[in-house]
Amino acid sequence: MGKVDKKLLKEKIILGLDPGTNVMGYGVIMVQLSQVKLLQFGVIQMGKFGAHELKLKKIFDRVLSLVDEFHPDEVALEAPFFGKNVQSMLKLGRAQGVAMSAALYREVPITEYAPKKVKQSVTGNGNASKEQVARMLMQIFSIKEMPKLFDASDALAVAVCHHYQNGTVKTTSKSWENFLRDNPKRLKLP
Amino acid sequence: MGKVDKKLLKEKIILGLDPGTNVMGYGVIMVQLSQVKLLQFGVIQMGKFGAHELKLKKIFDRVLSLVDEFHPDEVALEAPFFGKNVQSMLKLGRAQGVAMSAALYREVPITEYAPKKVKQSVTGNGNASKEQVARMLMQIFSIKEMPKLFDASDALAVAVCHHYQNGTVKTTSKSWENFLRDNPKRLKLP
Repeated sequence: MGKVDKKLLKEKIILGLDPGTNVMGYGVIMVQLSQVKLLQFGVIQMGKFGAHELKLKKIFDRVLSLVDEFHPDEVALEAPFFGKNVQSMLKLGRAQGVAMSAALYREVPITEYAPKKVKQSVTGNGNASKEQVARMLMQIFSIKEMPKLFDASDALAVAVCHHYQNGTVKTTSKSWENFLRDNPKRLKLP
Repeated sequence: MGKVDKKLLKEKIILGLDPGTNVMGYGVIMVQLSQVKLLQFGVIQMGKFGAHELKLKKIFDRVLSLVDEFHPDEVALEAPFFGKNVQSMLKLGRAQGVAMSAALYREVPITEYAPKKVKQSVTGNGNASKEQVARMLMQIFSIKEMPKLFDASDALAVAVCHHYQNGTVKTTSKSWENFLRDNPKRLKLP
């Protein structure tokens, strides 16, 4: 997929990311007027890299190359705010931070969405299964095969969610501030 | 401080980082034969940036400019593996991930040290106070004034710790693997 001349087409490109420590999903969509097109979706697998830092470097490099290839106008990030334990949250936070760095480096604004919000937005049900989310996306984009890894469909879902939210959520800072305002007890601020 | 011709001087430059969500400490030392010199230390303050992503962007930009200014051969990171709660660990993980990204982007290897290890290495006491660590550094580098923020001295301490460890800890992956080997119960692997 080559570069797309966005100004000529007057459209918006959204990169959805679902960062994890061993697998990171990504989905790129193009919104033009009321049409939404799938440009690419897939996963970045870090499992084969033994060292933690090599995994992080791979995340950074791949996200940077996605940003440089598709020139997204906005990045949408699936970001769970809760986890099983502090160690897993530290590692998830690192993976998120590294993925965010690549977008921030290219000055692409980031909006975060909780998994429940993404499911609600795409399927109408905040408790939908990953398979239900994937099936809905297959319908929207006429995808014929179920993705092998739900990380890919989850990332595509957050891009679609961001598109649906458009107009209500404008900027990065707003979305984070909104989260804090709406969930004063869910985050302990330093 | 301009660029330093390291090859001519046959020395090593270590950048110590103590990443946090609102304040990040950094310390740069130069090791030449048995001599250790302080090049710079200080803090990057993100408190004035309201939005979380702006703070992360500031961390990335400042660490990248430190790397580009001092061309460190190695980065040493103070990285607590435990925290009060999952939210604070997620945010700390993000700050760490963003700081690490800038070093990884320039292909500088990173070694992580637990706070206790840093204290032990610098003062001989793993339970030393931050002030005791700072006083020891003031002695080593003939610093006359106590730093206003211990984030700065903590970052300098991790650089010194890395220097002292040199020879036993060689690479990033080693150090992480060593941590896992030495602390099998402290990290839950995915």
